[in-house]
Amino acid sequence: MSALAGAWLSGCANTCPDSTATVVPQPAPASPQPVATTGFEQLQGFCDGIEPVGERELEARRERARKLLVDTKLAALVVEAGPTHGYFAPTPWRRSERPLLMVLPARGAPVWVGPAFEQGRLNERLGEVELFTWEEDVSPYTRVAQALRKLNVATSGRVAVDPDARGFIFAGLRNALGKARVVMGGEVVDGCRMVKSPTELARLRRANEATKAALRAAAARLEPGMREDEFAELVGQAQREAGLQDIWSLVLFGPNASFPHGTHERRQLREGDLVLVDTGGSLHGYRSDITRTWACGKVDDSLRRAWDTVLQAQSAALTQIRPGVACADVDKAARTVISEAGYGAGFTRFTHRLGHGIGLQVHEAPYLRPNNPRVLQPGMTMSNEPGIYEQGRYGVRIEDIVAVTDSGVEVFGPRALSLEQPFGA
Amino acid sequence: MSALAGAWLSGCANTCPDSTATVVPQPAPASPQPVATTGFEQLQGFCDGIEPVGERELEARRERARKLLVDTKLAALVVEAGPTHGYFAPTPWRRSERPLLMVLPARGAPVWVGPAFEQGRLNERLGEVELFTWEEDVSPYTRVAQALRKLNVATSGRVAVDPDARGFIFAGLRNALGKARVVMGGEVVDGCRMVKSPTELARLRRANEATKAALRAAAARLEPGMREDEFAELVGQAQREAGLQDIWSLVLFGPNASFPHGTHERRQLREGDLVLVDTGGSLHGYRSDITRTWACGKVDDSLRRAWDTVLQAQSAALTQIRPGVACADVDKAARTVISEAGYGAGFTRFTHRLGHGIGLQVHEAPYLRPNNPRVLQPGMTMSNEPGIYEQGRYGVRIEDIVAVTDSGVEVFGPRALSLEQPFGA
Repeated sequence: MSALAGAWLSGCANTCPDSTATVVPQPAPASPQPVATTGFEQLQGFCDGIEPVGERELEARRERARKLLVDTKLAALVVEAGPTHGYFAPTPWRRSERPLLMVLPARGAPVWVGPAFEQGRLNERLGEVELFTWEEDVSPYTRVAQALRKLNVATSGRVAVDPDARGFIFAGLRNALGKARVVMGGEVVDGCRMVKSPTELARLRRANEATKAALRAAAARLEPGMREDEFAELVGQAQREAGLQDIWSLVLFGPNASFPHGTHERRQLREGDLVLVDTGGSLHGYRSDITRTWACGKVDDSLRRAWDTVLQAQSAALTQIRPGVACADVDKAARTVISEAGYGAGFTRFTHRLGHGIGLQVHEAPYLRPNNPRVLQPGMTMSNEPGIYEQGRYGVRIEDIVAVTDSGVEVFGPRALSLEQPFGA
Repeated sequence: MSALAGAWLSGCANTCPDSTATVVPQPAPASPQPVATTGFEQLQGFCDGIEPVGERELEARRERARKLLVDTKLAALVVEAGPTHGYFAPTPWRRSERPLLMVLPARGAPVWVGPAFEQGRLNERLGEVELFTWEEDVSPYTRVAQALRKLNVATSGRVAVDPDARGFIFAGLRNALGKARVVMGGEVVDGCRMVKSPTELARLRRANEATKAALRAAAARLEPGMREDEFAELVGQAQREAGLQDIWSLVLFGPNASFPHGTHERRQLREGDLVLVDTGGSLHGYRSDITRTWACGKVDDSLRRAWDTVLQAQSAALTQIRPGVACADVDKAARTVISEAGYGAGFTRFTHRLGHGIGLQVHEAPYLRPNNPRVLQPGMTMSNEPGIYEQGRYGVRIEDIVAVTDSGVEVFGPRALSLEQPFGA
């Protein structure tokens, strides 16, 4: 119940007591922090000066959603707690069997439908909004129907629902509103979230620049004999010093970067290994996602050739990224380079799509993959990350985050230049 | 990609690189562990001798699902990664935009539909199963249709989908299979998961006994002046010593247990406060969830009266829990006691449902709430947790986990006896 707002909750990721079903996990109990310096102090302040999301920005997002609703003749958008909810109203709220739903009408302010016993906490977190609460013996979905009536939405008005909402919520809404009125809201949601504002771009730019600077600083301290987990810790420390949060790091040495079946070793770096690091964090909720591959000492010519091919593929994709080009065609530009270099067609050795959109989530629309007809627009942001994987031998991937501009593309932070200059000049 | 199976990944909860979309987070880099003793060493070994889930148990679950499918004239069950997937096949797999789907036909072994570039990791984790992979340019849902044909499911056969699956998965399946064939699979899923086997009961029993023993041990060290977060840390230590994992703790002192708007203080315990602790952990994935309320020193008579009323309400509910009784009637038994004691009708001061099912999730079916006609069956497990909350003054809740037996009910661990003996005799 609402008591939790003022209380102390430890642990709790997927588990919560009945009364705390929607409480956001707090950090684990303080463990002793190492007081030693990290050696990455030069990165401090890297993310300074970037603004968090404010109310004006949120209202602009909702206004864009309303416009898209009107344009597509939809009466309202329903979003359950989750990433899209966070986009429109940054209220941390964990999904549980008790749904929290935002109802945004095509005209007017959004209202929320949530559990009555959480009213205190909801008011505290959502601010002065209209809240339709349901007691435990009432269906949340009949409250959505009531909210729509109060918002003067016609009883024939179609309601778009975030496709990320769970199936039982769709079923409940269909039951309460009538089957025909409930439609998938993907185009409204993606239409908002895919196109970033200048302030969103500033956050994504800085976050990805910070990860690149941190990775470069950490790489300077990588030595043969170091284990994957040890280096991942360094990569994390450097990003924390640079001001990022929610840091994850994938570190792969030598054949571990290819396609290993079943090994769980934490490999130590050896001369002749390729190092592949895929890492990122967040700045005011906006994500970074950077991959670099480089050599420890002298590597086999076949590894160098794969590296050069991946960079060429990335460059080929980059020349395609501009307004009006289909996602599939960008993927194709990279895939063709790799295929024509003799690494096989399709997904043979470049086993995944070229890239994914990025924003509040590391993966979001648009997706750069074959058969995706979606057309790029200014303000879209995405990864450009071709790769070549030779099972049991090596893996190469080079990943930048880019933004579509009015006339072309911007790469956030320096590109890789060569196997000798993987972090740029 | 599959490379991750053998690699080292740090961080990463909701964030992951493109190629690691479905990697399960690893523990954070080792932070210095306190070497001091906890003082709870007497709890070590408490959870010994309890078996983890084995293949025979999993097959029995799938067989039960097949029976329910046949009984309800359904051709197959589709489950996406998540808690229900974990029930049928304990493969940790994080949800991403790329679905992993189990397809269990009414007759025969289940098959899986997953991303091609994850094949190595899927084989490694799922074992020798039939896998229908999709490359990034192919719809996963057409692969489900192909899998169903291969499984000799008639093209008219209706397919039940786990209601917890996300909306876009329902939409994709409707598109690939035809609208009429896709139905909500709640009754099949709940019909399996709600009824616990003896081995599941053994895990739940021991987990909840362990939490009670740990809470009792921690309470012996609670003193005036201690902060809520400090005591939560003790409660967590004791449960870890007892052998539980995934521990969460909610600790509320005095008025913080009621309905505070906006306070984020970490209150220090004072004489005259009620202490409310709601906490739990997991044993081989099975959850505990226990609440105890007790007094620090002498408390006001009105608090004592609320405490006694809550215990009476819990006892009244307990007398109703047996096969054949509706969930709503169990809730009513407790609510009536609280209402007749003058605390208001309905949800006035007992602001939430009486209880929730518990198993692999802390909250799962069945739910003890008004208007729920579901009838109790032997093997169901649930919380029995009435409460009274007086805004700004106090909160009382007493929670046990119980199992429905062939003829009545079993309470896991000792019940609260009185305000002086909140942990039993």
